Amino acid sequence: MSYSLAELTQGLDIVIQGDPECRIHGVATLNQAQSGELAFLSNPLYKKYLPATQASAVILSADDAQVCLVNAIICKNPYFVYSRIATRFERKTKPLPGIHPTAVVGKNCSIDPSASIGAHCSLGDDVKIGPQALIGPNCVIGDHCEVGEGSQLHARVTLYHEVLIGKRVIIASGCVLGSDGFGFSKHQGVWHKVPQVGRVVVEDDVEIGANCAIDRGAIEDTVIGTGVKLDNLIQVGHNVRIGEHTAIAGCAGIAGSAIIGKHCLIGGGTGVGGHTTIADNVAVTGMTAVTKSIREPGIYSSGVGGLVTNQEWRKHSARVHQLARLVERVKTLEEALKKFMGETAS
Amino acid sequence: MSYSLAELTQGLDIVIQGDPECRIHGVATLNQAQSGELAFLSNPLYKKYLPATQASAVILSADDAQVCLVNAIICKNPYFVYSRIATRFERKTKPLPGIHPTAVVGKNCSIDPSASIGAHCSLGDDVKIGPQALIGPNCVIGDHCEVGEGSQLHARVTLYHEVLIGKRVIIASGCVLGSDGFGFSKHQGVWHKVPQVGRVVVEDDVEIGANCAIDRGAIEDTVIGTGVKLDNLIQVGHNVRIGEHTAIAGCAGIAGSAIIGKHCLIGGGTGVGGHTTIADNVAVTGMTAVTKSIREPGIYSSGVGGLVTNQEWRKHSARVHQLARLVERVKTLEEALKKFMGETAS
Amino acid sequence: MSYSLAELTQGLDIVIQGDPECRIHGVATLNQAQSGELAFLSNPLYKKYLPATQASAVILSADDAQVCLVNAIICKNPYFVYSRIATRFERKTKPLPGIHPTAVVGKNCSIDPSASIGAHCSLGDDVKIGPQALIGPNCVIGDHCEVGEGSQLHARVTLYHEVLIGKRVIIASGCVLGSDGFGFSKHQGVWHKVPQVGRVVVEDDVEIGANCAIDRGAIEDTVIGTGVKLDNLIQVGHNVRIGEHTAIAGCAGIAGSAIIGKHCLIGGGTGVGGHTTIADNVAVTGMTAVTKSIREPGIYSSGVGGLVTNQEWRKHSARVHQLARLVERVKTLEEALKKFMGETAS
Repeated sequence: MSYSLAELTQGLDIVIQGDPECRIHGVATLNQAQSGELAFLSNPLYKKYLPATQASAVILSADDAQVCLVNAIICKNPYFVYSRIATRFERKTKPLPGIHPTAVVGKNCSIDPSASIGAHCSLGDDVKIGPQALIGPNCVIGDHCEVGEGSQLHARVTLYHEVLIGKRVIIASGCVLGSDGFGFSKHQGVWHKVPQVGRVVVEDDVEIGANCAIDRGAIEDTVIGTGVKLDNLIQVGHNVRIGEHTAIAGCAGIAGSAIIGKHCLIGGGTGVGGHTTIADNVAVTGMTAVTKSIREPGIYSSGVGGLVTNQEWRKHSARVHQLARLVERVKTLEEALKKFMGETAS
Repeated sequence: MSYSLAELTQGLDIVIQGDPECRIHGVATLNQAQSGELAFLSNPLYKKYLPATQASAVILSADDAQVCLVNAIICKNPYFVYSRIATRFERKTKPLPGIHPTAVVGKNCSIDPSASIGAHCSLGDDVKIGPQALIGPNCVIGDHCEVGEGSQLHARVTLYHEVLIGKRVIIASGCVLGSDGFGFSKHQGVWHKVPQVGRVVVEDDVEIGANCAIDRGAIEDTVIGTGVKLDNLIQVGHNVRIGEHTAIAGCAGIAGSAIIGKHCLIGGGTGVGGHTTIADNVAVTGMTAVTKSIREPGIYSSGVGGLVTNQEWRKHSARVHQLARLVERVKTLEEALKKFMGETAS
Repeated sequence: MSYSLAELTQGLDIVIQGDPECRIHGVATLNQAQSGELAFLSNPLYKKYLPATQASAVILSADDAQVCLVNAIICKNPYFVYSRIATRFERKTKPLPGIHPTAVVGKNCSIDPSASIGAHCSLGDDVKIGPQALIGPNCVIGDHCEVGEGSQLHARVTLYHEVLIGKRVIIASGCVLGSDGFGFSKHQGVWHKVPQVGRVVVEDDVEIGANCAIDRGAIEDTVIGTGVKLDNLIQVGHNVRIGEHTAIAGCAGIAGSAIIGKHCLIGGGTGVGGHTTIADNVAVTGMTAVTKSIREPGIYSSGVGGLVTNQEWRKHSARVHQLARLVERVKTLEEALKKFMGETAS
């Protein structure tokens, strides 16, 4: 299966430098590409591989195209143009429509004939599965759930009862949505479970990575806004609301009742504290502790960073722990100098 | 389905201010509640919503009741009273007793007739499932496991062999209990697996959140004590013992052989180091590195905190890295002043 | 089932001090061992239990053997020798060869007759399962996957399409391998999915803990090298390459395109930044942020550590935030002293 550059770029806002009839049969990195393959250049880290690339064509910016010796697809956003073209070279097979005979389906479900329900799935009662939706093998879907048109649950996803999934949503394998939030009241030294009666609402065009856990709301719903992208192994507590088009990297934890704005970037391993609010257009670097609300757009971090040798780290740590003593010494000096200057002056 | 305030509060240690016959058909937050709904006020953050609440009744303290314009359920612990009442408004359906025809059950199992085994479950040999226990769809339970009376495994839980679950335990979807601990011995530059022959013992009234991983003991057992509450995506290493009624928030990692006391609170994203011991009644704030044992009750943290802009963070980091130089300058000043004072005095 | 010390140690490089015919029926810790049980001493933390141990024999070093009052198995690496012997006392049952009747197998699969495919598994098309391989219940394996000789997937593992597993690999329950990497291009304020067309390659003798998530490559493959050991709940991003015999502890997150060397040790909860490179033989302590490449062997950490009371932590944090002021005060002092000394001298 191969395509000409002209075919691959039809309808895209690009200019071809070189031969539009050049045939492409796959994508590869600049560094590894062979003849017949298409590469792209977006991250400047990899520009060093451009001069010697064996790719038959490269997607890149007008500036970079000046030093490109092979066919070039020139555009403003090479990574975006690559993302459009590369879909042609995916080797995924789409499951067939219909309900696999080993799937167990409850009462009163509405499953579109164009949807696919994989082997060993268990669906509860009153479940709605929209057109073209794909439910992978071994998924478990609780009562009153809805999965919208064109959405895909990969293998082994759990939706508890009353989880609503919008259109074109992708949920990777191992995710759990709608588990009870971490709500307990202490009474006489013992924790008592607080019923979690809210739902999970996942709006359109969301993508959620593998093995994430998204709790249902305690009373109101947990809401993942339109276009949000979550990486792997992310925890989202009850009542959390994540604004449209926000992206959160792997291993982040969002504690209960946090509200995250639109178009935010949350780095990997970051923890967002309970009941905090993050404004729109905020970026938080990886492994930050968001211990309080962030009211203004900008880039935020916590603690004191810097990767150093463990030996230096021990010294830094010791010095910070001795800062009180240093402040004392400076104060003593200030007083001594002042007194001495006074005495000498008199 | 609606209830009067009198019905809802029967047997609870409360006082009704207003109309005990007021009908309630659901729960809601103070802010969102409509007529016919019940709210509660516990976190002072939300007190601002009390004056204008549309709730038909509010559960709150005697102090807050003075400014409550609607029916009030007055009590010492509003969150606890709410947790008792809210169970009436859960919309979960309880699975029917019996073994689903698609479940695979090994030899010599003892499954109480009142227990429920969901679709596509796989049970090994010599498994015991107690009365009223609920095993969700697609669970896998290994040989010689026991699940006590009234306990619930939600969908897609794995118990490896010899995992013992007490009574009234709740385990959320995606959890894995009894996987091999991270035990390897290095020999000639290569890691060799150390057999993990201990078990996992989960005592009564424990709740474990979604996608947690709890390893079996290397030799002795890994033990989760009575009433312990674990949030989502928590790792518990081999041989760990967690004391009664301790609560651990999401994304925490407890390394092997750590021993955590009773009634502790461990914040989200916290890491507890291997072979450390934490006393009873210790609280550890979120994202702390517990690098050594904690012998006394109290609140603990690590590193240096504070959420700041990334620009400030860079400056703080640079200054900490330059602390050695600052200490040197102070020392030089001290010596210069001392010498100068000596000279001037002479 | 019991063995003599002579039988247990056959072929191992050890010396028996005491009775080689002593019968052993199980393993236990030094502290808990009873008569008939074998213990080992490797971590000096536990040496205090040696004098009073009730074990019938102890595996230990020549030095420690001098104070051992019971039978001793003397060797250079007691933990390694223990790991060899303890395999005799595992109580795991090996599943029978063959394909469980409830498993669903696609077209054109090649499953060795000595392999075992558990209940409720779903295999895609063109899957190869090697001799003696064990696929636990409820696993999902995509098209074109390969699982090598003697490898084991525990219950509920997902392999997406084109995931290649070498020989003698162990993958714990709940793992997901081959999910799409976190690749999105932003165009007009909205994230667009970038197709992830690489594979996951897991080389021989790898072990992966419970609930890990390992993404497929964006273009090239994600590669887990020979003998690598991953603990639980670890995230491995797209294009990551982990070198041979590296061990990574629980809850670590490796961002996309990171390259980790051979024989590294990565502590629990550590985050490795995207596009960073870590040299061979590097150790990184727990909860470190690896924000840049590490070019030299050694031990590395980030930030400022030290577990302290929360009260002290608040003071340390405040002092760090006031460091700019302290630097200013020292500068003022230096200038004042210099000026004053100049004046006094003149």
